[in-house]
Amino acid sequence: MALEWKKNVREVTPYIPGEQPQEGKLIKLNTNENPYPPAPGIKKLISDADTERFRLYPDPDVTELVDALAEYHGVGGDMIFVGVGSDDVLAISFLTFFNSDKPILFPDITYSFYDVWADLFKIKYETPALGEDFTINTKDYIRPNGGIIIANPNAPTSVAMEPAAIQSIVASNGGSVVIIDEAYVDFGGKSVLSLTEKYDNLLVVRTYSKSRSMAGMRIGYAVGNPELIKALNSVKGSFNSYTMNMLSIVLGVESLKDEEYFRSVIGKIINTREKTGVSLERLGFKVLPSLTNFLFATHETVPASVIFEELKKENIYVRYFDKPLIDNFLRITIGTDEEMDIFLKKIGGIIKNFKKMKKGVDI
Amino acid sequence: MALEWKKNVREVTPYIPGEQPQEGKLIKLNTNENPYPPAPGIKKLISDADTERFRLYPDPDVTELVDALAEYHGVGGDMIFVGVGSDDVLAISFLTFFNSDKPILFPDITYSFYDVWADLFKIKYETPALGEDFTINTKDYIRPNGGIIIANPNAPTSVAMEPAAIQSIVASNGGSVVIIDEAYVDFGGKSVLSLTEKYDNLLVVRTYSKSRSMAGMRIGYAVGNPELIKALNSVKGSFNSYTMNMLSIVLGVESLKDEEYFRSVIGKIINTREKTGVSLERLGFKVLPSLTNFLFATHETVPASVIFEELKKENIYVRYFDKPLIDNFLRITIGTDEEMDIFLKKIGGIIKNFKKMKKGVDI
Repeated sequence: MALEWKKNVREVTPYIPGEQPQEGKLIKLNTNENPYPPAPGIKKLISDADTERFRLYPDPDVTELVDALAEYHGVGGDMIFVGVGSDDVLAISFLTFFNSDKPILFPDITYSFYDVWADLFKIKYETPALGEDFTINTKDYIRPNGGIIIANPNAPTSVAMEPAAIQSIVASNGGSVVIIDEAYVDFGGKSVLSLTEKYDNLLVVRTYSKSRSMAGMRIGYAVGNPELIKALNSVKGSFNSYTMNMLSIVLGVESLKDEEYFRSVIGKIINTREKTGVSLERLGFKVLPSLTNFLFATHETVPASVIFEELKKENIYVRYFDKPLIDNFLRITIGTDEEMDIFLKKIGGIIKNFKKMKKGVDI
Repeated sequence: MALEWKKNVREVTPYIPGEQPQEGKLIKLNTNENPYPPAPGIKKLISDADTERFRLYPDPDVTELVDALAEYHGVGGDMIFVGVGSDDVLAISFLTFFNSDKPILFPDITYSFYDVWADLFKIKYETPALGEDFTINTKDYIRPNGGIIIANPNAPTSVAMEPAAIQSIVASNGGSVVIIDEAYVDFGGKSVLSLTEKYDNLLVVRTYSKSRSMAGMRIGYAVGNPELIKALNSVKGSFNSYTMNMLSIVLGVESLKDEEYFRSVIGKIINTREKTGVSLERLGFKVLPSLTNFLFATHETVPASVIFEELKKENIYVRYFDKPLIDNFLRITIGTDEEMDIFLKKIGGIIKNFKKMKKGVDI
């Protein structure tokens, strides 16, 4: 076949998500999912769902969830935009706000979807280098630009930034929208959400996929000045009137009602994270200081790619990025204590075997 | 506030969906929803849902639903692309395939999202006029273009096109992707789905929102040559890895299993449509020949805008488009027999009152 139409196809290199094996018994520490189930109220709500209503379109304004989020965060409903996961919110934000001739800015090491969206929408970008300790230098973001996006805490590094540093970037860039992607902020980072009342150019993006254990139902949102939200809704309404399905809307509301459960899950994960970090260091890892639900770690002798492959053989999935600067690191999602114990035992074995093998080769 | 960032905001005029009133007792004939519930299996599936799994991301390849749709239509799994309603599938298709310097083509009267997507993605377009009987002239689509999109049957006219006419358009445009939007085809239209095996430039788009009574769960899909599907998946994977939530995937599969129920619902709607059409003609309406789940009708004396407003006062919602050429038409979704009986009674009263009032004015 000639496939003549191919000349007009948009050329892209899609984002590659972590593997999502559908079968089998495994320990899945590769996509930063929460090891604990969503709030108990979710189960009851689902069993009571009025499936006859599925015949109707959902509320295009998603009023119920918008209002619940506004109340939860103590802001106006006109300051909330919701989408199908924070990826949807971010994609729509790139399309809405990043239309300048000047390049947008984001760190050289960060969520690897940012350059994918920039390429998709033909947005120019520059990527200031992180410092040696993987921190962001605020000065790199105070220069002409068409927009800024920073993940805080950053991924896959797990390293967080102080609100004052973000505030200085936001305050210095009145002509650009500054997006702070707070996907992981609930695990100990400091949010800049309250600054959205003060700065009209600040958009804070959140997700239900990590701290709220609801990756499967695809819920994300943004908080910002009503004018930012209006612009997002116009573009979203030009893409798809009804992106959010009926069940995700009510489940999203339900999750917000159980603050105690939410806090307890986060507490458990932070606890496991700290213990796991210490254990990894004992095994010879350098572990970056994490305020997320994952650890970013590199071993003093065993290459990350080797550990990654060996763990996979043991049915333990972690994330490995074959990219400059981070190709000797592993990103390890925090699972339950039981999962991390098995993980640590296996990884200990892998390191031991590697050293034995090396020794054998050296002789 | 200065809102300096506004200069770089994408300027759009969003699609305005039909009203989706969330409260109250009303007869809703304005957004072409199905009056009957989804397949009975859906209810059971939902009550048994394993909500603990919501903590995980859904399968980004949506394999389960893709395979079920492939089997249902007797094509390969590499010929199916799924999305969050057919609007999502169409938006991604515009972004993927319509990147030529030449204008894309669609009828002047058609689904009013097409020009919204074209504007959003800055795609040039031309809109050949429908004939006086609201039919499409195939010759208008055999000239240089950057792509073609035709709804068959067309909306809001309800008028269908013969597959041979579509085939001639597809065959004459090897250098362009031709999208046939078959949102309403299950209600009596003739599908060109089988032609996707023959023509590498034909993409057929379908939805669960009408015939499958599942507008609330947002499921749509496209069928086409594996190369078309690959291009769609690349762009989709550059926008959002996981658009389809876990429940919609399994519910989408479940719906396909109950062909008998599906056929019975469609049969009832067609039956009600035919009866309603005859009754409207008796009341002085001209009704276009419909192969959809709605009627497009104009009254000989009473303006459509008047009927629209009067029906609303009676809590009956139909759709009115205040646009050139169709601003004296109403688009009436087919409800249950009971709903249409009430609708006809009320509309009869409105016409009678209008004539009485007119007569009063004339004297």
